[in-house]
Amino acid sequence: MDVSKTKQAKPPLLNGASISEKRTELKNYFKQTWAEYESLFSLINDDSAYFLRPEHLRHPLIFYFGHTASFYINKLLLGKFISERINGKLEAICAVGVDEMSWDDLNSEHYDWPSVDEVRDYRQQVAELIENLIDNMPLSLPITQDSLAWIILMGCEHERIHIETSSVIMRMLPLQYLTAVAPWSTCQNTGKAPTNELLPIKGRLVEFGKPASDDTFGWDNEYGYDQLNVNDFYTSKYLVSNQEYLAFIEAKGYQQNDYWSEEGQQWLAFTKATMPRFWFKKANNNNEEVYWQRNLLNEIPLPLNWPVEVNHLEASAFCHWKNSESTNNEKQLIRLPTEAEWFCLRENVAGDLTTWQKAPGNINNEGYASSCPVDQFEHNGFFDIIGNVWQWTESTIDGFNGFDVHPLYDDFSIPTFDGKHNLIKGGSWVSSGNEAMKYSRYAFRRHFFQHAGFRYVQSQRGVLPNLAANHYENDTGICQQLHAQYGEAKSAMPLAVKHYSQQITDELLACINEYQVATNTCLVLGCGVGRTSFVLAQHFNQIDAVDFSARYIRHGVHLQQGKSVRYTLANEGDIVDFYEFNLTDFDLPCSENILFSQGDVSNLKGVFKGYDVILAQHALEQSYDPRAFLQEVNSRLNAKGLLIIVSSYDFDEQQTSKENWLGGLKINGENVTGFEGLSLALTPHFNLLKQQQLTRTIKINRRNFMLSFPHLSVWQLK
Amino acid sequence: MDVSKTKQAKPPLLNGASISEKRTELKNYFKQTWAEYESLFSLINDDSAYFLRPEHLRHPLIFYFGHTASFYINKLLLGKFISERINGKLEAICAVGVDEMSWDDLNSEHYDWPSVDEVRDYRQQVAELIENLIDNMPLSLPITQDSLAWIILMGCEHERIHIETSSVIMRMLPLQYLTAVAPWSTCQNTGKAPTNELLPIKGRLVEFGKPASDDTFGWDNEYGYDQLNVNDFYTSKYLVSNQEYLAFIEAKGYQQNDYWSEEGQQWLAFTKATMPRFWFKKANNNNEEVYWQRNLLNEIPLPLNWPVEVNHLEASAFCHWKNSESTNNEKQLIRLPTEAEWFCLRENVAGDLTTWQKAPGNINNEGYASSCPVDQFEHNGFFDIIGNVWQWTESTIDGFNGFDVHPLYDDFSIPTFDGKHNLIKGGSWVSSGNEAMKYSRYAFRRHFFQHAGFRYVQSQRGVLPNLAANHYENDTGICQQLHAQYGEAKSAMPLAVKHYSQQITDELLACINEYQVATNTCLVLGCGVGRTSFVLAQHFNQIDAVDFSARYIRHGVHLQQGKSVRYTLANEGDIVDFYEFNLTDFDLPCSENILFSQGDVSNLKGVFKGYDVILAQHALEQSYDPRAFLQEVNSRLNAKGLLIIVSSYDFDEQQTSKENWLGGLKINGENVTGFEGLSLALTPHFNLLKQQQLTRTIKINRRNFMLSFPHLSVWQLK
Repeated sequence: MDVSKTKQAKPPLLNGASISEKRTELKNYFKQTWAEYESLFSLINDDSAYFLRPEHLRHPLIFYFGHTASFYINKLLLGKFISERINGKLEAICAVGVDEMSWDDLNSEHYDWPSVDEVRDYRQQVAELIENLIDNMPLSLPITQDSLAWIILMGCEHERIHIETSSVIMRMLPLQYLTAVAPWSTCQNTGKAPTNELLPIKGRLVEFGKPASDDTFGWDNEYGYDQLNVNDFYTSKYLVSNQEYLAFIEAKGYQQNDYWSEEGQQWLAFTKATMPRFWFKKANNNNEEVYWQRNLLNEIPLPLNWPVEVNHLEASAFCHWKNSESTNNEKQLIRLPTEAEWFCLRENVAGDLTTWQKAPGNINNEGYASSCPVDQFEHNGFFDIIGNVWQWTESTIDGFNGFDVHPLYDDFSIPTFDGKHNLIKGGSWVSSGNEAMKYSRYAFRRHFFQHAGFRYVQSQRGVLPNLAANHYENDTGICQQLHAQYGEAKSAMPLAVKHYSQQITDELLACINEYQVATNTCLVLGCGVGRTSFVLAQHFNQIDAVDFSARYIRHGVHLQQGKSVRYTLANEGDIVDFYEFNLTDFDLPCSENILFSQGDVSNLKGVFKGYDVILAQHALEQSYDPRAFLQEVNSRLNAKGLLIIVSSYDFDEQQTSKENWLGGLKINGENVTGFEGLSLALTPHFNLLKQQQLTRTIKINRRNFMLSFPHLSVWQLK
Repeated sequence: MDVSKTKQAKPPLLNGASISEKRTELKNYFKQTWAEYESLFSLINDDSAYFLRPEHLRHPLIFYFGHTASFYINKLLLGKFISERINGKLEAICAVGVDEMSWDDLNSEHYDWPSVDEVRDYRQQVAELIENLIDNMPLSLPITQDSLAWIILMGCEHERIHIETSSVIMRMLPLQYLTAVAPWSTCQNTGKAPTNELLPIKGRLVEFGKPASDDTFGWDNEYGYDQLNVNDFYTSKYLVSNQEYLAFIEAKGYQQNDYWSEEGQQWLAFTKATMPRFWFKKANNNNEEVYWQRNLLNEIPLPLNWPVEVNHLEASAFCHWKNSESTNNEKQLIRLPTEAEWFCLRENVAGDLTTWQKAPGNINNEGYASSCPVDQFEHNGFFDIIGNVWQWTESTIDGFNGFDVHPLYDDFSIPTFDGKHNLIKGGSWVSSGNEAMKYSRYAFRRHFFQHAGFRYVQSQRGVLPNLAANHYENDTGICQQLHAQYGEAKSAMPLAVKHYSQQITDELLACINEYQVATNTCLVLGCGVGRTSFVLAQHFNQIDAVDFSARYIRHGVHLQQGKSVRYTLANEGDIVDFYEFNLTDFDLPCSENILFSQGDVSNLKGVFKGYDVILAQHALEQSYDPRAFLQEVNSRLNAKGLLIIVSSYDFDEQQTSKENWLGGLKINGENVTGFEGLSLALTPHFNLLKQQQLTRTIKINRRNFMLSFPHLSVWQLK
């Protein structure tokens, strides 16, 4: 296969008029990707180098050589598109361990790696299987996420990612093991860097998210929608060059903790770094130590006009140093751009990979097998908005509203939604396929190295133009309540019973009607994640929604702001499902007449009074002194006001010491139930109007539910 | 009221021809009991003595004075026969603390006791309320356990118990606080004791349990049925007298640990006792220390011919000493009688309290306010089979088969079913009402003192003629399984689903039919408490039922032996319900073709083979290596045999380390479900015939259930 031609490979579109042409297109993209991967590995001139471990945070290259092929087999089996393995042992050993580990996590496991020839044979078998599948699989257009063709595309894009990450690892391999060959040629153009300068960018509304209708493959993290207003700001015209960064080194930047974040200081202390990862010092003819740079295939005296390659911690430290040098740093801040700001920059590049005749930058492996000068590729007055090296941002990665995992690759993105993975944008010289496209979103731990550098921006100090993080809730109790209150849209209830929140609100609304109670104000105690409050808000002028735990309330507040809530729920064993919803999924408005607040039922503030109805849902059994509340709740109600108690009377010593239990124990030697204790406390001021048994299911996981029969009692102020 | 007449009070019969006469009878019994209690307390000549604490294991007498009255109010309220308290504070403080505590549990709590006059007034109010109730309550005959009349009788019998226990406490009060009055007169007859001797008793089948049809009130522990064969034995003609016991003292019995049980040694070390509790030493005219005895109302030189009064530990030690003195002690053993042996003795007394014109013993307060000589009351050659002092037995108390608690007094008996409470039989001089009747069963901790002594028996060494203890199972997991498998007869299922065990056996039996499988042998793995095995035993020639836990299996074995199983289940909070059942409740035979045994599914013995059907119910997720079982289960089946797996695949690291989970985690980077893992392990040898979702409910307590949807799959050997 002619490798030089593969550099121009473009991702197939999902739509098309001809099935047979689409097969051909898919097959070519597969073959080109496959060939390019093998072309990269063909740079290795000695099989023993496959087993070295130049990057201690990564597996040796033999893993990656087998990994992209075994990925196809593992995903095809998972999707039940094939039923047999090719080489179970290889598919196991080359399956996991791709992701970067923590920087101080030195993995000392022993692996029984296959030989390189075994992997070569294996790759051959897999390629034949995939090509055969492409020829014979059912195919309809457009290609959808549940189709086999999507998995083929996923495999190609997955392999393209590993072309890049493998090239980074090979850049750490001793040069003796690599032989430069024609299509992989290092840029020869080096020299002094141009002086960087700040250019203005007009702020605008940035809309995020690859449309579901987009005609190209995308990873799960690209889809969904969000928007953000970005103020005017300045951006550096060029990426930061080695020359510009050298000034930071010479200013002893690596020796001054002040410039470094806490994480950066820890990393510095651990690695004892004194310069960027691909720099090194070497004596020159005058026996002076001077800086050199290691590229993929050679070492050259530090190319001052090429972009510096650093991790996020180093890039941030540079910005801090730069601020300290600035005279204007009280109002203006130099920092890394956010994802939103990069999108403002990206407006200056026309089109995208699929429409370019020739890439307008050092990207897609169309230019050099290395960086090139920072002033070589211009876009509308700015340089290297795309290509050359990736650009670190201030933004950690998270899913947009509407994010949904792909079922066959549920851990591609979710593990990175942790506030520890920062987005890199723009792509590098070796980024191709999805990597090289506008909507793509890749993120790495901040200490990690890629072919990545940075540009800086300057803006007014203040809040960064970043989307608020919306991480998945993973507290088991909160997730179970979220699912119980909002989850039925996505998973069927196990029992044909009315939704629990609706049982409560229906009964409350019926009582209002039956007993002619005013509907001005309602207090909801134990509001939790808010469903009943959102329903009642449509019937009352004002709802005060109170819960002891801010961790529950914050979801109610979030929903009220129109935002989506994300949570996880156990499926089976360690496997979890991911959920996202917002109020519109339930045709509920984001009622402004609810005031969520944290409050202690046993010691409720005096301001909570004058209610027509007080609903206490499971608030008694979660309070440390339920009698304290019951003794004065009458003073919080308007004349003839209703008190509705929902409780399973499951008092628990963790929350409520035994002397404060309303019941469920012997009092003066005789058994007293919770309802008897409740009645005793309320009868001085209330008449019991009615009582009823409710049915509540809480999903624990795929096969297990808590089924309970809480008790609802309606009391009217005497 | 003429106190002297009250001594002949007899418990009313439950049956009768005339309602109005029964009212009168009830009222008289109530009034007589009440008066006798007050007569006893009238012996106290100084109100300050009510607040002393002569017995540190008991409350002061003021508690008991108020307790029997407040008992009525507390029970009547609990039964909703009345709705208002008379004196809430008094009814609280006089409610609990009756039962003896551990002998080293010195209670140091401070109580705010009412004054004696306050209690006198209170008693007056309660008496009026009860008499008024008796006059006006609905009454039908016979009196049943759920009727108000039963509660009146319960209150009377409760007060009669406290006549006795209070008299014991008063026996510890300094004499200065007591004034002997006419009806309470100490026996004057003292002297040398007759020489004791052993008389033969013919063994027989003893049947236990007061018939449900019996015409008198009984406590819960008296009802039910059991039987036991008692061999011939010898019994001492007389109770052990002070004189007989003195020989043990003089033999330094209290200084030789060998004679004492471990519990006895601990008690000796703690109390430093050197003689029985009511003995003391006093200098005589010659200034020699001689033994005296404290009675209720006086102190007298040790009456040698009266029965010694000791606790169970002392009585047992005496028997051990007596054995050591015997020349025949290798074959014959001197010991305390069992309850069964006492019943053999009791045959020598005609009639019962309700039929006696005059009590044939020093009992029912008809004789003395003290013990009397051991040779005064003869029955058919034996003395003091009833009356004089209680007789300790070797039998700990437990419920008979069919035991059921009375709902308004659920802690009368249950807390004593713990192996630490030994039965006392026969009654003392002050025992009256139920205490004095043949079927009554009272038990105390072995270190406790009552007006109690002992007789001894001699029998062949070997197993004691004791009923096997059948204590309530209280392990939460086992109780929940017992209830899930056998509980529906007594409490309705929350859902209209087929019984879980039946879902499994129906499916198994349908498969046998559909696939024409032989029904010779079946292996049930994870048999638990056995329900499916009992059902399948009716369809197979042989069932091997295996579980990892002997604690579960023992209930299956117990049921197979035709016995009842008892367990508790949480109701609400700390309140528990008590359950008892046996196989006949489910029309299941006690199949002899089931062999229950303990076994490790992951390492099952080779002998478990040659089955037509193997059913594994929740056995995989409870084994530490389910694959080990699945890999060789094929070798345990006959040709075309069926393997039926029921599992919820809830693997848990507590039981199964993660590398052994069949699924519910990522394997080589991809999610694998438990059923997928199961299929992978079984497909080499089995064909999957069908699969199905089951529905299982497990009651946690009154309002909470675990609802799960386990998976059943049917596999046939290829």
